[in-house]
Amino acid sequence: MSQKQIGVLVGSLRAGSYCRAVANAAIELAPASLTLRMLEIGDLPLYNQDFDDNKTQPEAYVRFRAEIASLDGFLFVTPEYNRSFPAALKNALDVASRPYGHNAWNGKPGAIISATLGTMGAVSANLALRHPMVFLNVPIMQQPEAYIGKVDSLLDEHGKLTNASTRKFLQTYMEAFERWVHTISDAH
Amino acid sequence: MSQKQIGVLVGSLRAGSYCRAVANAAIELAPASLTLRMLEIGDLPLYNQDFDDNKTQPEAYVRFRAEIASLDGFLFVTPEYNRSFPAALKNALDVASRPYGHNAWNGKPGAIISATLGTMGAVSANLALRHPMVFLNVPIMQQPEAYIGKVDSLLDEHGKLTNASTRKFLQTYMEAFERWVHTISDAH
Amino acid sequence: MSQKQIGVLVGSLRAGSYCRAVANAAIELAPASLTLRMLEIGDLPLYNQDFDDNKTQPEAYVRFRAEIASLDGFLFVTPEYNRSFPAALKNALDVASRPYGHNAWNGKPGAIISATLGTMGAVSANLALRHPMVFLNVPIMQQPEAYIGKVDSLLDEHGKLTNASTRKFLQTYMEAFERWVHTISDAH
Amino acid sequence: MSQKQIGVLVGSLRAGSYCRAVANAAIELAPASLTLRMLEIGDLPLYNQDFDDNKTQPEAYVRFRAEIASLDGFLFVTPEYNRSFPAALKNALDVASRPYGHNAWNGKPGAIISATLGTMGAVSANLALRHPMVFLNVPIMQQPEAYIGKVDSLLDEHGKLTNASTRKFLQTYMEAFERWVHTISDAH
Repeated sequence: MSQKQIGVLVGSLRAGSYCRAVANAAIELAPASLTLRMLEIGDLPLYNQDFDDNKTQPEAYVRFRAEIASLDGFLFVTPEYNRSFPAALKNALDVASRPYGHNAWNGKPGAIISATLGTMGAVSANLALRHPMVFLNVPIMQQPEAYIGKVDSLLDEHGKLTNASTRKFLQTYMEAFERWVHTISDAH
Repeated sequence: MSQKQIGVLVGSLRAGSYCRAVANAAIELAPASLTLRMLEIGDLPLYNQDFDDNKTQPEAYVRFRAEIASLDGFLFVTPEYNRSFPAALKNALDVASRPYGHNAWNGKPGAIISATLGTMGAVSANLALRHPMVFLNVPIMQQPEAYIGKVDSLLDEHGKLTNASTRKFLQTYMEAFERWVHTISDAH
Repeated sequence: MSQKQIGVLVGSLRAGSYCRAVANAAIELAPASLTLRMLEIGDLPLYNQDFDDNKTQPEAYVRFRAEIASLDGFLFVTPEYNRSFPAALKNALDVASRPYGHNAWNGKPGAIISATLGTMGAVSANLALRHPMVFLNVPIMQQPEAYIGKVDSLLDEHGKLTNASTRKFLQTYMEAFERWVHTISDAH
Repeated sequence: MSQKQIGVLVGSLRAGSYCRAVANAAIELAPASLTLRMLEIGDLPLYNQDFDDNKTQPEAYVRFRAEIASLDGFLFVTPEYNRSFPAALKNALDVASRPYGHNAWNGKPGAIISATLGTMGAVSANLALRHPMVFLNVPIMQQPEAYIGKVDSLLDEHGKLTNASTRKFLQTYMEAFERWVHTISDAH
């Protein structure tokens, strides 16, 4: 199997983000044919089409669009904010989908993990995030779904996700994602 | 390429359904490696778990579950009813997803065409129909999207979809669906 | 406060439905100005526009449309099937929204309780059910939301919802619904 | 009728935004009991919970949260970006919903107008925006819905929305919104 470069996008921007802990565990537990790296999305100014029309792209846009264009697939790890996913993720999606006709996500496989302090909100963020992927042409893995509840209880005192059964689940999940990435990538 | 058996599910049950006309055109214009046939969903009683618990499945359930299990993929053609898709389609999805642990849709590729007399509603039915597909594990083709507006104006006096540009679009759409079907099927 | 007649629609059709147990508790705990009664939706044939075009309405349609037209508001109690709500509920919505121009739901207040054996699916059914309500013009109470998890553990051996904290929650919920019903009804 | 202060939030940040033209027309055509003013959302840094936890709120957060808290209702005017609404709007929603327990939107009425250069995307942005409103407890007007297609064709050479039938529609829409605002506000 060829090596695939996967970008990891975390929806929560806070330093001690639980989603970042989940993402780090997913990276650690991924099979060998996936090379994953965390992408920075917190420095992207809110999307404004004037940047594109006036050819005055912020440097962060230039960097991010090039990164997305260079990658083979994406893992999104999102919290729930108000029964949907955070602005930071939608902003990243929008920035790299533009300027018109230059959709850097186009045709690349993806997967969505959602996590929550409670038990329920993760589903709403996860499902809402799937709709933009239709237009962006990012085929999202359907199964297994990954909804991680009571996420704060799964970490150790250093903020590392150490819960054994969640780690086992994430390992299985990343193996399925590996198959999905190769299925979609090798067909295009 | 191996031959793939595709079931076509039409959300509107009326005899002169515009969606059925769209589905017939899609069948006619499909590439050779796809064998498509229309499935009957209008005779399925509303799903009731007691049928499964009591082992008294309606005959239509037995037939339909066997059909879905025997097929390689699915084309859904849906109208919009009240900013979502019709009950007839949700019922078909639910019936063949049960009894628990016997999801006949599992892992098979799909695509969704939505049509409307107006111009806008097709999007809402199409997007709403994608959420059950996550749990059913039916990977849905992301692009091209198929939203067919003013559908009544595209038919001739016999109710056949004869509009040239729509037929051209449907041909391109079915070629993309052929690639999607083989991508997903051959990976499983 | 004037007395309001509220129809209760339960999405699960099985005889021992957990949602029906929740609905019965909600009816029992409702404040005095709401008169609630359970509506039958399981006998409605799948919606087919030919019934309307040909003026051959099934008797169940005639009955149900008259019931909806006579009521002041609605309480929906839904399980989750495949990350959305059941066909039986969508069918009921569609039947009483037609024939075109005769939307019997129009302008009447509603609320949605969703329940699940697990912990998470209730959110997806609840949110999905809100989209048809936009077109049907049924203003849905936003807060409190009602997602009832592990619903089977809340019932006694006769299938009655006896869990004290859930009953307390449902009482508070129905008091909020009473205010919502009067707010919307008295404004029209 | 008492006077109500309404904040107008425009999802597109570009200077010549079509949505801003629609919003300006809605403001101009609104009935007398509504005082509408445009809110700035483009200067809000992407929401990061560390700002709240560390008590180092950006000045724009302080200003915006105070504005939302002081207002009686909200009109959202949104474009469609990738089958959903823009990050700028989600960010504004999230910022004024926090810190935890300080939801400045709570209980106030809202309405959503969506506009698009094409004909279809407006529905998807509009429906997606309704889900966060459930948790934020912003009751959204159900009818009339406002989907404005081919929006660029409705403006004059100064970027003003001058199309007569759209202006007539917006006037009717704002009259309905006036009733909705008073219905919800006066009940709380």
